[in-house]
Amino acid sequence: PREVRAPRGSTMQCRGWEQEAALRMLMNNLDPDVAERPDDLVVYGGTGRAARSWEAFDAIVRTLRTMANDETLLVQSGKPVAVFRTHEDAPRVLIANGNLVGRWANWDEFRRLERAGLTMYGQMTAGSWIYIGSQGIVQGTYETFGAVATRHFGGTLEGRLVVTAGLGGMGGAQPLAAAMHGAAILGVDVDASRIMKRIETRYCDRMTYSLDEALAWLGAAQAERRGLSVGLVGNAAEVLPELVRRGITPDVVTDQTSAHDMLVGYVPVGMSLAEAAVLRGSDPAGYIARSTASVVDHVRAMRTMQDRGAIAFDYGNNIRTVAFDAGIDDAFRIPGFVPEYVRPLFCEGKGPFRWVALSGDPADIARTDELVLELFPHDAQLRRWIELARERIAFQGLPARICWLGQGDRARFALALNDLVARGEVSAPIVIGRDHLDTGSVASPFRETEAMRDGSDAIADWAILNALLNVASGASWVSFHHGGGVGIGNSLHAGQVIVADGTDRMRRRLERVLTNDPGIGVARHADAGYDIAIATAAREHIRLPMLER
Amino acid sequence: PREVRAPRGSTMQCRGWEQEAALRMLMNNLDPDVAERPDDLVVYGGTGRAARSWEAFDAIVRTLRTMANDETLLVQSGKPVAVFRTHEDAPRVLIANGNLVGRWANWDEFRRLERAGLTMYGQMTAGSWIYIGSQGIVQGTYETFGAVATRHFGGTLEGRLVVTAGLGGMGGAQPLAAAMHGAAILGVDVDASRIMKRIETRYCDRMTYSLDEALAWLGAAQAERRGLSVGLVGNAAEVLPELVRRGITPDVVTDQTSAHDMLVGYVPVGMSLAEAAVLRGSDPAGYIARSTASVVDHVRAMRTMQDRGAIAFDYGNNIRTVAFDAGIDDAFRIPGFVPEYVRPLFCEGKGPFRWVALSGDPADIARTDELVLELFPHDAQLRRWIELARERIAFQGLPARICWLGQGDRARFALALNDLVARGEVSAPIVIGRDHLDTGSVASPFRETEAMRDGSDAIADWAILNALLNVASGASWVSFHHGGGVGIGNSLHAGQVIVADGTDRMRRRLERVLTNDPGIGVARHADAGYDIAIATAAREHIRLPMLER
Ligand SMILES: NC(=O)c1ccc[n+]([C@@H]2O[C@H](COP(=O)([O-])OP(=O)(O)OC[C@H]3O[C@@H](n4cnc5c(N)ncnc54)[C@H](O)[C@@H]3O)[C@@H](O)[C@H]2O)c1
Ligand SMILES: NC(=O)c1ccc[n+]([C@@H]2O[C@H](COP(=O)([O-])OP(=O)(O)OC[C@H]3O[C@@H](n4cnc5c(N)ncnc54)[C@H](O)[C@@H]3O)[C@@H](O)[C@H]2O)c1
Repeated sequence: PREVRAPRGSTMQCRGWEQEAALRMLMNNLDPDVAERPDDLVVYGGTGRAARSWEAFDAIVRTLRTMANDETLLVQSGKPVAVFRTHEDAPRVLIANGNLVGRWANWDEFRRLERAGLTMYGQMTAGSWIYIGSQGIVQGTYETFGAVATRHFGGTLEGRLVVTAGLGGMGGAQPLAAAMHGAAILGVDVDASRIMKRIETRYCDRMTYSLDEALAWLGAAQAERRGLSVGLVGNAAEVLPELVRRGITPDVVTDQTSAHDMLVGYVPVGMSLAEAAVLRGSDPAGYIARSTASVVDHVRAMRTMQDRGAIAFDYGNNIRTVAFDAGIDDAFRIPGFVPEYVRPLFCEGKGPFRWVALSGDPADIARTDELVLELFPHDAQLRRWIELARERIAFQGLPARICWLGQGDRARFALALNDLVARGEVSAPIVIGRDHLDTGSVASPFRETEAMRDGSDAIADWAILNALLNVASGASWVSFHHGGGVGIGNSLHAGQVIVADGTDRMRRRLERVLTNDPGIGVARHADAGYDIAIATAAREHIRLPMLER
Repeated sequence: PREVRAPRGSTMQCRGWEQEAALRMLMNNLDPDVAERPDDLVVYGGTGRAARSWEAFDAIVRTLRTMANDETLLVQSGKPVAVFRTHEDAPRVLIANGNLVGRWANWDEFRRLERAGLTMYGQMTAGSWIYIGSQGIVQGTYETFGAVATRHFGGTLEGRLVVTAGLGGMGGAQPLAAAMHGAAILGVDVDASRIMKRIETRYCDRMTYSLDEALAWLGAAQAERRGLSVGLVGNAAEVLPELVRRGITPDVVTDQTSAHDMLVGYVPVGMSLAEAAVLRGSDPAGYIARSTASVVDHVRAMRTMQDRGAIAFDYGNNIRTVAFDAGIDDAFRIPGFVPEYVRPLFCEGKGPFRWVALSGDPADIARTDELVLELFPHDAQLRRWIELARERIAFQGLPARICWLGQGDRARFALALNDLVARGEVSAPIVIGRDHLDTGSVASPFRETEAMRDGSDAIADWAILNALLNVASGASWVSFHHGGGVGIGNSLHAGQVIVADGTDRMRRRLERVLTNDPGIGVARHADAGYDIAIATAAREHIRLPMLER
């Protein structure tokens, strides 16, 4: 077992900061404080890897250390395969991970090729060297609840009751994110140890086995318009119907149990975790029948709450489909969270903008937090996020920050970061990147491009154009992946990372990349007929040829 | 019905030659002398289109006319969707055609989206604006027969007898290409009108209904080591077994009937074309049973010839599989033409290099033909091609030339072309491009990447890296397509085109693009373990990180 951590400080091992940044970010992805299973090169999300093998990792590092500032390294599914001379304004690294020809784009063929040592699963930010730990999940959830607040509650969840279930790996961000918006949130989980973990990391405030106690705490917080999160040990398929019976209708109801997997992800009513584990092994079909029956009760309660006035949405776990298939005809009256809350943000070019201090110095991120507040003084939701993140988010690996910024603001902020570096207000260059899940970079009909207005869910041209455009604009590294988020066969997506090193050259590249990368997302949504995107394009002077004349 | 022809001459309508070249090449693809169905915007290959609609065509033209030299147009499946500011060394146009997320990568979903006006089939060079008519097919066939000659017959087919069948759209290039190598070639086709057409266009020398007459002519030509092509009206499933009975074993045997489609493409023994048409309509299953039985006789004859010493290969029409499925257990003893003859060329970075005179003046191509002969005086096969092409190939649309050049030679020739333009030896800039079917740009397990040594047939990372690398290197336009050649779901591939305008800036870009574009193909084949590719990489100084130390 090797321990890898990124070098810190303002001295380079490489011949340029772009190569150095790629090297540090690759290593940072494998930092034991960042990666889930660093020994296997697995960063997060199932088997999302940063490199195909340790041999490949070593060759990448070796190559980055010697590459000139006009050379480009090609990485094919986590393995370095060639270096070519390009030019100084071109990317230093080009990455393609896990891509397969359509007919072969399934898990069986992928796993066969993976076993043969020919490919790797890159997830989204694992194989593109820009994962920054769980901060990304918290912020994405914060953004979704923020969109709910803006749309339905005048911009805040203060005084509101949110009910959800599932405090696991992703779902565990819900209590923190909702409380950040001032909500009183009840998070139900059958597994006490999952709630305990959230309490320890301060993602959840309090825990109880009693619904009455939970409701009392939450009621008090609501009355004081104070953010509070309560983890209740219980089964959602019991607790939600009980709330319905008591006539308690939350303002918002959603769910992040692992309902996408009826055998492993969802515990039926009336059994302990241990009993569930036994039944799962002895009688899988019987298990699924019981868990499905529970989902039916669970979703029926959500629908009743919705009919009584609650804002309800499916949070990407497919619970609607399970219930629908089991006979709840109106399950799809509950909308999906992407079309409902995330797409309007995408239409403004908003997406998961993030940056990392290559110095390793938390003071550098503190300075950039200030910069956000200086630059965007009127964005209350952003201010609240930065203030709470400073206080609540522990750094993992190199210090980093994430927030969602839209068309225009991403470029403005990137240039300001570059100026900070130029003026020496931070001690080393800053790396700017994003998740592959972004406005113009992903084709994923089960999630990000579900139910597009024009029916273009499965069209993948945009993701490819996004990658090509980022290369043309001069990102430091550009990646194109298959299957991140929703699995092999189900998505294609691109990523970009660019280094703010304080130079004029990078200033020009930053302006282009941070304008064009979200800009193609605005164009994509304008093309699909979304008014907000058409308005954003007009305001931000994005030229759309079909709308000219 | 609109008639579109590219502007000629040395005066631009656009603000730079790159935009002007894109405009002329788009229009040239739709020239009635080039395109199969210009009214429907169909250039070739089924429904391979140059633009999604006339409205989209007009918008592309309008945009190209106004774009600055640091702007980039994005084209999504034949429709212009945005213009962004990039920089002068970046491509002017980025194109993605027909791409779909894997699970949806099939004809049904594609056609649904096409009907909804959301996508377009770009084939390979239709939607990437670099189709040049049938010269490409002739040259590809010339290259394959050339590889056969080099491998088995000391570099020439003089004095050799080649037997094939199918003189249709693609197969009709066989008589011309084989005769160019000095062969005596017998081309069997059931349809006399198809042979007649080849005679009219001088692709075939003579035609007869008598096997005896054909053999007499061919025997004489063989004796004199003179190239001769004879079209024999007959059924291959009758003629080939008859040759076997007579003990006549050709030096080479192959086939280009449309055996990939047993209902429409292959005529059973013992019926006229008219009878075949009737049976096809009245009893499709009966038709297929009879055509399949004929293929069995046909392939059995090929196998016998092979056992008696003939060089046999499957020329991409799947005839082996049909015979195998019908019980010819050893059908796959006949190798496919790609692994056997094309892949060794790919390993040297060879592929379908082509260039077009934007002036429209045939004298410009004549000058470039001279240049080929000046630069590569020792390549006998290339010299023969150029000499015969000058004499036999009629230009369609803008004058163009194609030949296969390998790693190193492509860059050398491109720089020499740029010098010609700089010195005013040609009257306008020259456009340099290629087919998507090339060494490093295509993933296509049914054809170009069939039976890769390491089993990486379905890995598509290389095609994507090729597109990204061409953008980074500074091609004038770069395209990424789905489904060209073998249909939706079955291939992914990239293309690049670059303009030699005589400037120093383009000189630098030409050197990079024409080195890197084939270079990634050499790297791809080296990575798969092909010795020729590893040797080529060493000779041409392509850096392969995994082979270092
Ligand atoms: N919104 C998004 O963007 C997004 C992204 C990724 C995944 N998801 C989906 O969200 C879901 C949760 O993901 P995760 O990583 O947190 O999963 P996880 O498996 O780590 O957590 C699921 C939690 O649900 C609890 N649970 C199971 N059955 C329950 C029941 N009947 N009542 C109460 N609690 C129950 C489990 O104890 C566990 O803590 C998954 O379906 C996932 O696919 C959504
Ligand atoms: N080598 C390659 O790179 C490549 C590329 C594309 C296509 N192909 C394959 O090559 C084949 C030919 O392509 P095409 O465009 O020329 O097709 P086509 O349909 O235009 O021509 C086929 C010809 O075969 C003749 N024919 C049919 N049955 C016959 C028989 N029993 N005996 C003699 N002649 C018979 C037909 O009369 C016709 O002229 C197709 O299967 C195609 O898929 C190969």
